[in-house]
Amino acid sequence: VSAFRLGLVNPNTNTGHTEAMAAVAREVLPSDAEIIARTAPRGPDSIESSADQAIAAAVVAELVRDDPGLDGYLIACFGDPGIDAARELTEAPVVGVAEAAYVAASFVGRRFAVVTTLARSVPEIEDGIHARGLAPRCVGVLPLGIPVNEQGAEFPDTTDAMVAASRRAVGELGAETIVLACGAMTKVAQAIQERVGVPVCDGVAFGALLAWSLGRAELGTSKAGSFAWPEKIAYVGMLPLSPRP
Amino acid sequence: VSAFRLGLVNPNTNTGHTEAMAAVAREVLPSDAEIIARTAPRGPDSIESSADQAIAAAVVAELVRDDPGLDGYLIACFGDPGIDAARELTEAPVVGVAEAAYVAASFVGRRFAVVTTLARSVPEIEDGIHARGLAPRCVGVLPLGIPVNEQGAEFPDTTDAMVAASRRAVGELGAETIVLACGAMTKVAQAIQERVGVPVCDGVAFGALLAWSLGRAELGTSKAGSFAWPEKIAYVGMLPLSPRP
Amino acid sequence: VSAFRLGLVNPNTNTGHTEAMAAVAREVLPSDAEIIARTAPRGPDSIESSADQAIAAAVVAELVRDDPGLDGYLIACFGDPGIDAARELTEAPVVGVAEAAYVAASFVGRRFAVVTTLARSVPEIEDGIHARGLAPRCVGVLPLGIPVNEQGAEFPDTTDAMVAASRRAVGELGAETIVLACGAMTKVAQAIQERVGVPVCDGVAFGALLAWSLGRAELGTSKAGSFAWPEKIAYVGMLPLSPRP
Amino acid sequence: VSAFRLGLVNPNTNTGHTEAMAAVAREVLPSDAEIIARTAPRGPDSIESSADQAIAAAVVAELVRDDPGLDGYLIACFGDPGIDAARELTEAPVVGVAEAAYVAASFVGRRFAVVTTLARSVPEIEDGIHARGLAPRCVGVLPLGIPVNEQGAEFPDTTDAMVAASRRAVGELGAETIVLACGAMTKVAQAIQERVGVPVCDGVAFGALLAWSLGRAELGTSKAGSFAWPEKIAYVGMLPLSPRP
Amino acid sequence: VSAFRLGLVNPNTNTGHTEAMAAVAREVLPSDAEIIARTAPRGPDSIESSADQAIAAAVVAELVRDDPGLDGYLIACFGDPGIDAARELTEAPVVGVAEAAYVAASFVGRRFAVVTTLARSVPEIEDGIHARGLAPRCVGVLPLGIPVNEQGAEFPDTTDAMVAASRRAVGELGAETIVLACGAMTKVAQAIQERVGVPVCDGVAFGALLAWSLGRAELGTSKAGSFAWPEKIAYVGMLPLSPRP
Amino acid sequence: VSAFRLGLVNPNTNTGHTEAMAAVAREVLPSDAEIIARTAPRGPDSIESSADQAIAAAVVAELVRDDPGLDGYLIACFGDPGIDAARELTEAPVVGVAEAAYVAASFVGRRFAVVTTLARSVPEIEDGIHARGLAPRCVGVLPLGIPVNEQGAEFPDTTDAMVAASRRAVGELGAETIVLACGAMTKVAQAIQERVGVPVCDGVAFGALLAWSLGRAELGTSKAGSFAWPEKIAYVGMLPLSPRP
Repeated sequence: VSAFRLGLVNPNTNTGHTEAMAAVAREVLPSDAEIIARTAPRGPDSIESSADQAIAAAVVAELVRDDPGLDGYLIACFGDPGIDAARELTEAPVVGVAEAAYVAASFVGRRFAVVTTLARSVPEIEDGIHARGLAPRCVGVLPLGIPVNEQGAEFPDTTDAMVAASRRAVGELGAETIVLACGAMTKVAQAIQERVGVPVCDGVAFGALLAWSLGRAELGTSKAGSFAWPEKIAYVGMLPLSPRP
Repeated sequence: VSAFRLGLVNPNTNTGHTEAMAAVAREVLPSDAEIIARTAPRGPDSIESSADQAIAAAVVAELVRDDPGLDGYLIACFGDPGIDAARELTEAPVVGVAEAAYVAASFVGRRFAVVTTLARSVPEIEDGIHARGLAPRCVGVLPLGIPVNEQGAEFPDTTDAMVAASRRAVGELGAETIVLACGAMTKVAQAIQERVGVPVCDGVAFGALLAWSLGRAELGTSKAGSFAWPEKIAYVGMLPLSPRP
Repeated sequence: VSAFRLGLVNPNTNTGHTEAMAAVAREVLPSDAEIIARTAPRGPDSIESSADQAIAAAVVAELVRDDPGLDGYLIACFGDPGIDAARELTEAPVVGVAEAAYVAASFVGRRFAVVTTLARSVPEIEDGIHARGLAPRCVGVLPLGIPVNEQGAEFPDTTDAMVAASRRAVGELGAETIVLACGAMTKVAQAIQERVGVPVCDGVAFGALLAWSLGRAELGTSKAGSFAWPEKIAYVGMLPLSPRP
Repeated sequence: VSAFRLGLVNPNTNTGHTEAMAAVAREVLPSDAEIIARTAPRGPDSIESSADQAIAAAVVAELVRDDPGLDGYLIACFGDPGIDAARELTEAPVVGVAEAAYVAASFVGRRFAVVTTLARSVPEIEDGIHARGLAPRCVGVLPLGIPVNEQGAEFPDTTDAMVAASRRAVGELGAETIVLACGAMTKVAQAIQERVGVPVCDGVAFGALLAWSLGRAELGTSKAGSFAWPEKIAYVGMLPLSPRP
Repeated sequence: VSAFRLGLVNPNTNTGHTEAMAAVAREVLPSDAEIIARTAPRGPDSIESSADQAIAAAVVAELVRDDPGLDGYLIACFGDPGIDAARELTEAPVVGVAEAAYVAASFVGRRFAVVTTLARSVPEIEDGIHARGLAPRCVGVLPLGIPVNEQGAEFPDTTDAMVAASRRAVGELGAETIVLACGAMTKVAQAIQERVGVPVCDGVAFGALLAWSLGRAELGTSKAGSFAWPEKIAYVGMLPLSPRP
Repeated sequence: VSAFRLGLVNPNTNTGHTEAMAAVAREVLPSDAEIIARTAPRGPDSIESSADQAIAAAVVAELVRDDPGLDGYLIACFGDPGIDAARELTEAPVVGVAEAAYVAASFVGRRFAVVTTLARSVPEIEDGIHARGLAPRCVGVLPLGIPVNEQGAEFPDTTDAMVAASRRAVGELGAETIVLACGAMTKVAQAIQERVGVPVCDGVAFGALLAWSLGRAELGTSKAGSFAWPEKIAYVGMLPLSPRP
């Protein structure tokens, strides 16, 4: 079997996040898989609002347009910004970390809770869960009140807060698994799983595995219908997003 | 009553579209309303794919960031690109033409059909209808197979195709109203309504009226929760989208 | 543009309510709009139960049958009694205050809560929200335990209770806007909005604007399908409801 | 066991319908059950439109108010007009023929189709199915294009049309059972079942059995919440609907 | 009318449960109905887990296969194990106690709560409610933390716990009726109803009545589609489940 | 990384199917993964009806009970019989081929169609899609009218029929991917994908990869809530299903 090249696309401009996520993916993928990590060249350092996400989505689209020939892509931000555009711009499979985390949760428990950063994102996450048809399986979306930039192993208080929220979700709300709603949480997923005692689903590790698995199963993005290559449209002020080969 | 200033934001770069839509809005709004029309300074000339939309959404966010103080906004493209971001970036009400057209249809009939441009956008439109909870009221999304740039009064064959699709929707599918899924169709809505004999709901005219009506009712975008001003985030390579005043 | 004549139909027999609602509509509509207010000639003085509503719905149908030629109608009770019948009985657009309030809320926030009068009506309101496909956007329906006849500006304690319920909805449930579920609350909507600091959506003011807007957009009730004129049926003991012109 | 007195309420004014439905109920109920049949004293001779239904619902409420002490009620029109009001006005169980027919269908097959009178009622029937959560089980609502007043055993062409529609539903749409959407169809249900070869669910016979069964199981309408006795409200021009004993 | 023979199938091996349930059915059915009670010959003594249910479902299928000619069947365990298989294996109507209890609840109130045994079964019960389309009507599933084998009249503490849970459901959650989620609770349903003051819906009594009612209405399981007789398949190590007569 | 031992559980008794599916899994998994294939020791040779499935589910539970210590399980029949029981009986991740195929389809297209064996299983498959929240993404379930035992590479006419059905799904219904609803179809998935030109999602190959991926991500079945070890229950006539270690 030939090597699998995974495009890990970080929609924000923070190279520290990119490296942390690439390391997690590196750890779980078979040794002959290659990780090509990309960091957004412009836009927000972290993504908290829909405004941040709108910018990030455009950048994700441009990054995939510029390198559409890898074997799979992982959009490494829980909002999955630009994922539909990315799917139009390549024939390889494209996985988002939110999708991946929800899929993992759906296999290892009947009910999940989501732990997220700020309260403002709760309705958007709920709407995403509803759009995926998973609302009956979600017992709650719990915000920590701690922004993206204070997530990760170097903020132990954040880990404690995540453990507390997860325990509340399990004990009071009936969660059977926990979904982590932020790429920057990926480094502490195992630690939380050990302390809380239920599966903690992080979309970075499992998303990388999903992209790899789709590749192994020879499943790429369908070019019939929604994700056909973009139409040929004139663009002003920038390279067009329509590279039908 | 003081004048109402409507920001009509055209997410594509085609100034002809902007002018046509501004004229339609001008016609229906009370005479003391003022229309400030904005055209995307970069990006696609028309919007057919998710890739086009991703770029347009970012541009919409930047346009609203640059002029957040108007009395209301109309995002004048059926995909409503960037509308959540726009809502974060102003306290005025923000209306999208898709939302507006569906609202109109929901008042004047129990079942609607959507007439759109290309088949590739059918699933996305269906998903938007589902997300709004309107799936039980939609009898079908009918693509014309004619792109955005061949829509409008100057393409009489397109109008004939729209009439034929609308008649089929009414006669065979049970549609009671028709929703036009493209801002560029706005100029011919009345003509189609007259020929088909059922209400034809165009989000440009009705969306402008909705934005004005929200203003009259003193209803602006809530700053509690989802649409609070964006968080203060460092941006690289561009002006940030976080103008909390 | 010729004047717009709005039929404001109060389904209960309380002329005080009629006048209060007509004044609110008068205030927001353009000056050349005319308001023709109708009060139910028989039935309940206020509407709390499904039994009250059943009577009111029949009366609404008769009122529209008797004057079907206005330019638009507003059914001015949150249960929207008789609205489907009304739509069959005219070609003009017909708006209900519940529909109108939900539409307003959907434009200015992602999550809303409803404040209503008595606990008994909570399930019916919830079912109406579900039928409209808005359940994922509603964070709760909060009853005041205060009947319709103690609503309005002349009952300051009621206003205080509404403010308290609204604050709880925002602070604890994540509401971004408040929907007022009673026509008699319309006079205090602005006061509550100012005190709570989020949009307070009242269907009387916004509903009048919607009816007017539909008229401006030349959208009337579709006569294809559900809202076709009633069939010709023999009636016993009363004037039939089948005025196909 | 004491005798069970069933109030069979015909919402239209056609005594022929009342008698036909009472005969069907009589045939299936145990011999000690008593049927007290009531015909609407005013309103439409048959119910085709929402306008007809609005009048009928008010009359149903008044009929139950006037005799609330029977052991169970059957609202004998497929639109179940006034059923919520009826439930408020008695402690006995209240069954509607639409509800009853859907329940029957849900026990004897996984997929059902509905055969109805006129096309105009299709969306309303679909919405009722959706509100009951049964949309995934319904393969279609098929209108005969024949009004209520041409239903029944004395119109053999109607029976033939019903057989043809039922066969189409089974053969082309995958229906496993047929629901008859009109009380006046009740007399021919057995004949159609024999000719089509799948269960044909008529809400008159089965609804009478359901009301009787609820009585046997000592289950009456809950007076906690939605169906509590109506509030004490002043009524103008008529006897109030608030007989809290 | 000839006698009706009801096959009451107890999916667990506990003959005490079988007898208690048969007695309840005996009490509510007309005197000429005959009850043929069957107890699972192998498997769990009570059913708490999905594993227990998987075994029970297979046994139910075998029991119906061995005696398919009765006039109706009641699967007397709240999980309705093997009910789809049972429907394939007979032409008579088949009713499950969960289905029956939900149907009863839907007629006598707008909102119900479920009282169940152990917390582990809450998600499964919720999923069943969702699959039936009843989620909007359910205000909660409340576990007692008491296993099946401590249910019934001989455990007065359990009855007290059920009363307490039911009162909480009514008082705090807005339940209008209570559904008992365990066949072994059937004996105390009346006692709880009297103490709580709202309808308490037990699927054993009402389910027996439903099976009898379907028989009276001449409605058997449809043999078109889902519940057609099983295909002719070779079986290893056991009598096949394919008795197409 | 230590080797991963996958328990591939064939719910039917056909060892030919087991071997074919094990070979497919073998081909896609990394070389250090080990496949332990199990064939049902009793029950149907293939699974077409709910009756067949009820037997198979019990056997699956017993097979997992007897060997709960592997690193992951794949339930290799599209009905996923006994999967909830299996999850209770092990701490390892358990994947069903239906779940796996739907997950694959959800990543590589927005709309899928299902190709299945007999028409009788269409409603059950549709209900499974609805329960997973995927109904809006499914454009149709197309039966071939060919039983399980005529599926596979040795029946070229079946492959032709699958290609024809898939082309119709893509061309007429808007499918973007195809889901194969039978484990025995797994051998021809690639051939169909090549001929039809859209992704063809087979749950055997991708399901094996999912189980392996869950293992790599250290995600096992949650023992909190639904899938806790079975309760300790007395069993009659067989080894109990309650091996809490």
